[in-house]
Amino acid sequence: MTTLNAVYWWNEACAVPNQTIKQQAEDRQGQLTKPTGSLSILERVAVQLASLQANAKPNVDQPWITIFAGDHGVMAENISAYPQAVTRQMLQNFATGGACISVIAREYAANLQVIDCGSVGEVYDYVGVERHCIIEGTANFVKQVAMTEAQCLQAMSLGFDSANQAFAQKASVYIAGEMGIGNTCSASAVACFLLNEPAEQLTGVGTGIREEQLIHKKNIINQAIQLHQDYVQQNAFKALCAVGGLEIAAMTGAYIRSAQLGLPIIVDGFISTVSALLAVRLNPEVRQWMLFGHQSAEYGHRRLLQELDADPLLKLDLRLGEGSGAGASLGLIKLACSLHNQMATFAEAAVIGEKV
Amino acid sequence: MTTLNAVYWWNEACAVPNQTIKQQAEDRQGQLTKPTGSLSILERVAVQLASLQANAKPNVDQPWITIFAGDHGVMAENISAYPQAVTRQMLQNFATGGACISVIAREYAANLQVIDCGSVGEVYDYVGVERHCIIEGTANFVKQVAMTEAQCLQAMSLGFDSANQAFAQKASVYIAGEMGIGNTCSASAVACFLLNEPAEQLTGVGTGIREEQLIHKKNIINQAIQLHQDYVQQNAFKALCAVGGLEIAAMTGAYIRSAQLGLPIIVDGFISTVSALLAVRLNPEVRQWMLFGHQSAEYGHRRLLQELDADPLLKLDLRLGEGSGAGASLGLIKLACSLHNQMATFAEAAVIGEKV
Repeated sequence: MTTLNAVYWWNEACAVPNQTIKQQAEDRQGQLTKPTGSLSILERVAVQLASLQANAKPNVDQPWITIFAGDHGVMAENISAYPQAVTRQMLQNFATGGACISVIAREYAANLQVIDCGSVGEVYDYVGVERHCIIEGTANFVKQVAMTEAQCLQAMSLGFDSANQAFAQKASVYIAGEMGIGNTCSASAVACFLLNEPAEQLTGVGTGIREEQLIHKKNIINQAIQLHQDYVQQNAFKALCAVGGLEIAAMTGAYIRSAQLGLPIIVDGFISTVSALLAVRLNPEVRQWMLFGHQSAEYGHRRLLQELDADPLLKLDLRLGEGSGAGASLGLIKLACSLHNQMATFAEAAVIGEKV
Repeated sequence: MTTLNAVYWWNEACAVPNQTIKQQAEDRQGQLTKPTGSLSILERVAVQLASLQANAKPNVDQPWITIFAGDHGVMAENISAYPQAVTRQMLQNFATGGACISVIAREYAANLQVIDCGSVGEVYDYVGVERHCIIEGTANFVKQVAMTEAQCLQAMSLGFDSANQAFAQKASVYIAGEMGIGNTCSASAVACFLLNEPAEQLTGVGTGIREEQLIHKKNIINQAIQLHQDYVQQNAFKALCAVGGLEIAAMTGAYIRSAQLGLPIIVDGFISTVSALLAVRLNPEVRQWMLFGHQSAEYGHRRLLQELDADPLLKLDLRLGEGSGAGASLGLIKLACSLHNQMATFAEAAVIGEKV
């Protein structure tokens, strides 16, 4: 697809979850040898995945993980604990297998795709990294919009294409992760626009800034809200352009396209959840294709999850990004599927299933 | 071992976790390519397990799960949602592979041992169930002590022997689970004695009783506290005899012996945590050998975890027993180990590890 004639692609209908299979899966859960409802969220996850995969025996045999990376102009304002060069360095680390998400991908036999949407620095050639230099990092959103609308659409297209690839390769679930030093700042700013709340409600320490830096980060975000509010006017796409990031746009595109294709999504942490909320604002049907892997330690994540009516499987207080929280939930989702598929029914096991 | 000369075996010293390895593991965590502390509890679990296994590369390659079953005389008081026959039926279901814990054991390549400490009913021969009929269920603790001290010691010995077997077979971690219709009632009663609190603080719906049955269950427990308090006199072992269960005693014995052998324990849900607290009261050194897998939905579990200063990996609101919560945490513990063992260091990956 080209970018310009795709302006409104995200409005196209999403796939429809299979209600017949959902009912079958719920009935089966009621027959398994356990007290009614006693497996709680593991039951709900299995039923949801059965419905989304239109498969009475849901599975996560072929998980797909894409890491989208991008740099952030707002780094000029000193809002992160780590230097910008780390974005590039971590790209290489993903590809050579030493990063957290690399280990997770091996652990759960996931396909790991690494897409550089626009990091700062010289041209490079890292085996295993797909390089797309839309721009060498976004512009500093305290001074101007982070991305033009055309740049933002290009970034969203990278996600669109990635979801298409995952679907073509018969992925069982899609996970989007991100890398971009400074991107909790951009994500918080987008969240402020989407929820119409000030920075104080939605800004955290990211990778670990000190208290005085956190105050500064909030000030920067509040300044950006002031600067861009006439442009944004409560439009989610414009909020993304104004203060978002390339990787945030790409994840948004990937989520919407996954839902259109009927590929279940596992949402990761704070930044991914901002993309999830963007996707749902652009196309509300996307929501039903989402499972939530993890509630992170980042301040504001709980608020975002509330807004999406989401109940994540894990609450481990990770704050790493890279899709690590969603990836870490794969084992439990796999277990939920195994329990659903393999447990005996009361009839099969000759166990009394009725309460006294 | 014989029972009678083993009265005080639980006072013997526990193994000592390896502090050198612990320090090495902490140092390594600080060098891995991630923001400091960003893997949170996954870091702490890997470090603790490294220390307990005295192995710089901790693992859960050979998990061991033992289900201890027993019936409860207090079932005469109508305190459970399911009939007593289900205990026996589930024993067979464990062994034939259809129960939740059977699926979990397969999922994580765990050894699953099933020990009947004393269920009600005819003699049987289920392949895969080790039958020890100490008594055909405990006595009704509203009328008399649930177990004599000799019976309780015998039940504890079953756990002692099980831990010995797991250790001899080089298990990497030990999980105790339980089955016994009515056993949340016994566990709550024990907890009331250990914490010196009334039934209202520590009694929940178990497998799912109705509101009026819950009130009745609390009344029964409060009556039992009245009846036995002069005998118990804040002695943990006597509390176990007075209102506990055979499987609760067996798990207590298994935990203590595991700690003495230096075999890390993963504690399961409400009933197992009562056994964990019993074990720690009998021998405080046992605590350091415990990881906690799951916070269950059962009312009172959070209070018990607080008492043990425990922070479980999972909070899924399961309420099934059988070791299922601890079992479900095995995947995450395995992941924590893989991350610890396989992630690249800053030096290896040439990533800047210093904050700006």
